[in-house]
Amino acid sequence: MKDAHGWVKIAGLGPGDDLLVTPEVRAALSEATDVVGYIPYVARISERPGLTLHASDNRVEIDRSRHALKMAAEGRRVVVVSSGDPGVFAMASAVFEALENGPLEWRDLQIDVLPGITAMLAASARAGAPLGHDFCAINLSDNLKPWSLIEKRLRLAAQGDFAMGFYNPRSKSRPEGFVKTLEILQQECEPDRLILFARGVSTPQEELRIVALSDAHPDMADMRTVVIVGSSRTRIISCDRGPILYTPRFTPDPAEPQPAAGDHP
Amino acid sequence: MKDAHGWVKIAGLGPGDDLLVTPEVRAALSEATDVVGYIPYVARISERPGLTLHASDNRVEIDRSRHALKMAAEGRRVVVVSSGDPGVFAMASAVFEALENGPLEWRDLQIDVLPGITAMLAASARAGAPLGHDFCAINLSDNLKPWSLIEKRLRLAAQGDFAMGFYNPRSKSRPEGFVKTLEILQQECEPDRLILFARGVSTPQEELRIVALSDAHPDMADMRTVVIVGSSRTRIISCDRGPILYTPRFTPDPAEPQPAAGDHP
Repeated sequence: MKDAHGWVKIAGLGPGDDLLVTPEVRAALSEATDVVGYIPYVARISERPGLTLHASDNRVEIDRSRHALKMAAEGRRVVVVSSGDPGVFAMASAVFEALENGPLEWRDLQIDVLPGITAMLAASARAGAPLGHDFCAINLSDNLKPWSLIEKRLRLAAQGDFAMGFYNPRSKSRPEGFVKTLEILQQECEPDRLILFARGVSTPQEELRIVALSDAHPDMADMRTVVIVGSSRTRIISCDRGPILYTPRFTPDPAEPQPAAGDHP
Repeated sequence: MKDAHGWVKIAGLGPGDDLLVTPEVRAALSEATDVVGYIPYVARISERPGLTLHASDNRVEIDRSRHALKMAAEGRRVVVVSSGDPGVFAMASAVFEALENGPLEWRDLQIDVLPGITAMLAASARAGAPLGHDFCAINLSDNLKPWSLIEKRLRLAAQGDFAMGFYNPRSKSRPEGFVKTLEILQQECEPDRLILFARGVSTPQEELRIVALSDAHPDMADMRTVVIVGSSRTRIISCDRGPILYTPRFTPDPAEPQPAAGDHP
């Protein structure tokens, strides 16, 4: 390597609001010589002397990762930005794929992942605590995995009565995936199962909608939406400031008599 | 209500390092009149004039929540602190349970959940990106749900080839749960499945250990440990600075011929 002081930090910018960016990420950005990432995420970084911004289009994650690693090997201090958490359906795995398949000398590099607030947990916080008990996170995009695996995971997650958070529910090029997702949920879950559609969480465009599964429609989601499906125990508290959606911590044992009627584990 | 300006903010302090506390949480703490929480989390809050710290023991979550709501109804500005993210096996659901079962006037209160970096994602970041694809989060404590449900979820998650993050894997009072968990995983997964034991992440006591399932032992976890079980695709990159554990984004379609040998979806 030309310079042992180059590094890559793969940093999560959170869902949008600067108040949700950790001081660790802020410090990395202040030390960086280069920031690389998808155009709308790089647009969140302030320009300053000594910092070069490298914005690239969607679906070039491996090229972007190789570029970051190459610059670090040349002694540059590179922050790869993701929205949310870089380890959740974001840039961390892409950088490690590029590392594994790249020149061996890249394996000397200092590479750190700096966690961030992921969209699913930001959405959950905004609505209450729908992920307050066991849950799954599923990426509904079938760009990189077969649809059959997505369907299998959806059915198993529903059968396990997990709450679920869905990333990338819908894009213009794949409108049918989320249609099928709702059909699968309708087969596996009761019609009054609660679903949260959370769009642009923590941004000025934030929009939250809670509906029963029987009223859910594919158009309620787009690529900026995170969808959270409650477990069978997820419920609403009606409050003056709007409904609170949450999953209680307690699940009764079906083998034991219960004081409250209507509970189902 | 005596004062309309009281509020409750249920805030996540992250896994330990102050650099992982969001500015949103920091601001709430600076405005608070009262902080309530479990003793070790309240110990992380700096004392200052005008701020009263209310530390309480474990397993009194509902009492603590009622106390917080009662103080807010009296006009106080109350931060309920959790480690990690308050919406992930932490205080948010407890506060909403107390709210739902409490006096109706509490439903006028301003109650916000401020997300934080949850232990599972902090551990994942430290190790690489083992949760880089679909994953489940499971609380292994059977204090509030029957063990049969935990076992069912473990088997379904393994059958769906989800990566998994386990909270509360082991306590002195329940040493047998994690023994059973490892037995279930050994029945459902191949012996070389990778497991991360991450203890005290982002604290001076941080300790990470990656082992194959066949080498995993119940003693490797305690209540300060988060356990991450990889999917069948999770792998290690050997690097000079230590192993990187990650789950690739790509899963091949078993119905299509694959270029790389040894891949299994």
